[in-house]
Amino acid sequence: MNLNLPLEYRYAATYAGIRKDPGDDLALIVSDKPAHAAAVFTRNMVQAAPVRLARRHIRSSGGKLSAILVNAGNANCATRAGDKVAKLSCKATARALETKTEYILPASTGVIGVELDPKLITEALPKLVSSLSANGFEQVARAILTTDTRMKVASEQVTFANGSVRIAGMTKGAGMIHPNMATTLGFVLTDAVLSAKELRGMLAAALDRSYHSLTVDGDMSTNDTVVLAANGASKLLLGRKERPAVQGAVTSVMESLARQIAADGEGARKLIIVDAEGFKTDEDAKRIARAISNSPLVKTAIAGSDPNWGRILSAAGYSGVVFNPNDVDVYLQGIRVCRAGRAADFDEAALKSNLDTAEVHVRVVRSGWSKGHARFFTCDLTEGYIQINGSYRT
Amino acid sequence: MNLNLPLEYRYAATYAGIRKDPGDDLALIVSDKPAHAAAVFTRNMVQAAPVRLARRHIRSSGGKLSAILVNAGNANCATRAGDKVAKLSCKATARALETKTEYILPASTGVIGVELDPKLITEALPKLVSSLSANGFEQVARAILTTDTRMKVASEQVTFANGSVRIAGMTKGAGMIHPNMATTLGFVLTDAVLSAKELRGMLAAALDRSYHSLTVDGDMSTNDTVVLAANGASKLLLGRKERPAVQGAVTSVMESLARQIAADGEGARKLIIVDAEGFKTDEDAKRIARAISNSPLVKTAIAGSDPNWGRILSAAGYSGVVFNPNDVDVYLQGIRVCRAGRAADFDEAALKSNLDTAEVHVRVVRSGWSKGHARFFTCDLTEGYIQINGSYRT
Repeated sequence: MNLNLPLEYRYAATYAGIRKDPGDDLALIVSDKPAHAAAVFTRNMVQAAPVRLARRHIRSSGGKLSAILVNAGNANCATRAGDKVAKLSCKATARALETKTEYILPASTGVIGVELDPKLITEALPKLVSSLSANGFEQVARAILTTDTRMKVASEQVTFANGSVRIAGMTKGAGMIHPNMATTLGFVLTDAVLSAKELRGMLAAALDRSYHSLTVDGDMSTNDTVVLAANGASKLLLGRKERPAVQGAVTSVMESLARQIAADGEGARKLIIVDAEGFKTDEDAKRIARAISNSPLVKTAIAGSDPNWGRILSAAGYSGVVFNPNDVDVYLQGIRVCRAGRAADFDEAALKSNLDTAEVHVRVVRSGWSKGHARFFTCDLTEGYIQINGSYRT
Repeated sequence: MNLNLPLEYRYAATYAGIRKDPGDDLALIVSDKPAHAAAVFTRNMVQAAPVRLARRHIRSSGGKLSAILVNAGNANCATRAGDKVAKLSCKATARALETKTEYILPASTGVIGVELDPKLITEALPKLVSSLSANGFEQVARAILTTDTRMKVASEQVTFANGSVRIAGMTKGAGMIHPNMATTLGFVLTDAVLSAKELRGMLAAALDRSYHSLTVDGDMSTNDTVVLAANGASKLLLGRKERPAVQGAVTSVMESLARQIAADGEGARKLIIVDAEGFKTDEDAKRIARAISNSPLVKTAIAGSDPNWGRILSAAGYSGVVFNPNDVDVYLQGIRVCRAGRAADFDEAALKSNLDTAEVHVRVVRSGWSKGHARFFTCDLTEGYIQINGSYRT
């Protein structure tokens, strides 16, 4: 893949024996000099040990980051030795990289409630550190996957008169994906010159359009962590005119990652893009887009290529937003299937075959002058989801 | 089935040609003299025409009811002629029964957005009325089903020194079942002497323990209607001492109906009963029980007989209730699988086979002195749900 990788980051991944089936399960992302960073974490009351420690580290370091240490195959959550294992791993990583422990951000993903042997990590660390390379981005992106079927990466380059800035991100997805929080693991790196405070603002704005507008199954993970790091290696000072372009590129990378998560949701055959338009506020539109995206009846209908707009209208109706259904049109693949709250005339057979595709677009449009708009990403709900989750653990 | 049917109600059902596949689809429940009644309806912004009309009738009649006219196969929702069809049907029924139009409560269930031909109803009415009989209760209970696989009825009899009171209920379920509102169709009849005001209080209390504690897929229907009617035919005056016993019996009938809906959820192989105990308030406990009951990951794990308690704990954690996970134990089928937020020792193979049964009991218990408790009913999530909903409409 042709990625615009930011300067002065290195990557490594290896198999440390944490997953049952061999395959890289431990990875490092290192910034050669400490980067500034912002991070958001799950809001679940049940939080994995690495999430709690990462939150402490990012706070006590004042938003500095030398490395992200991530493992897949074990969430290190609801375990007896969880805190100890997370601390020990960060300490060992800091020593090996000759940096501060609080500059290490730990992240884990995998099964909950199974003890994680810290030796698996500490013993794999020397090999991991010695294999760090600027070319390891995709190897790490593959190592963090669990039930994902494919790697999820995105990048952008923004070029100004006096130089360029690069942004690259990787993420994992699949299940336990719910909107309105930092969902799953996502690591976005840039070589832009940005302070921790600027990064926090950029991350919040980009999340709103990406991870916070994403749902697969409505389940919120215990390990969600999204990090945005900037090491300044581009050496390009950004003025007020350049910063929006960088923000746009960060948002674009994260939106692409969120889309890829939806498209690769557990058992998914179709990416569903839901637009709600013309509602009183963006927040209203978001609640409607979210209710539609979370509706198992909508998702199964789309899996079956069934233009069942009644379910879409009904989900909008129970979103909690007050509106008159008679003001609402529904479009599927650009074809109006519901006009003013009632059945519109359309060629059902043609639309059915139109729905038999990898990307389905749902639009719910309220007539009038209001401009509230929101877009959500989700996927269809198929037998595959059931098969994966009926036997994931055992 | 041996039901304790209340006195002086009559029932009839017939095939009026509303469903595609022949099978009774139009039914009448008649009280020989107008009964008092209370009803609750969906809170969806998108409401079927019969729901809007039923709400008006119950209000303008001051809580009086001669008959419930119900059809299956067409929701009469999001249709052009919806209001006209509902009105016309009620008017024709009132004429045939020689009662007031506002004493007729209409209800519909089935597909959304398809026009309902009023002639199908008016032409079937004479036959329907002429076949009214005290023995038709179960025939009507079968006529109102859609994707249900079995009839759902329950009854109770309460006997005092000076006589008895009978309560019988019927319901339909299957999909689009969500807690915290009048879900689906439910008709509960009694021959007790109760005012409309008393019935409203009884209905609210019973709903809290039944339909409002029930979820199948989190989708809220456009047609939900639950009615509690009392025609006083027992002629038994209830004092302050007797009324709680009647309330208990009404609650028990409705709880049984809710349980039957959960057990027969679309594609369900298992009824899941979720108890949350020891939380600060009943409301907290209810939010936790609801989050667990709505979690597709919990429901698929139970479908696969996988004692994946981490998903149960995680769902509790994102319920919005503040608690310390280390205070929480989780039980599956009475076996403690999580102790103080961590894995407990248990025989996994034995528990797995224990989970391979028609009824699964999940208990989440918070240690301490708080007494907040709630019970929720739901079902496992299987391939069957997907198959039913991927092709329901077409």
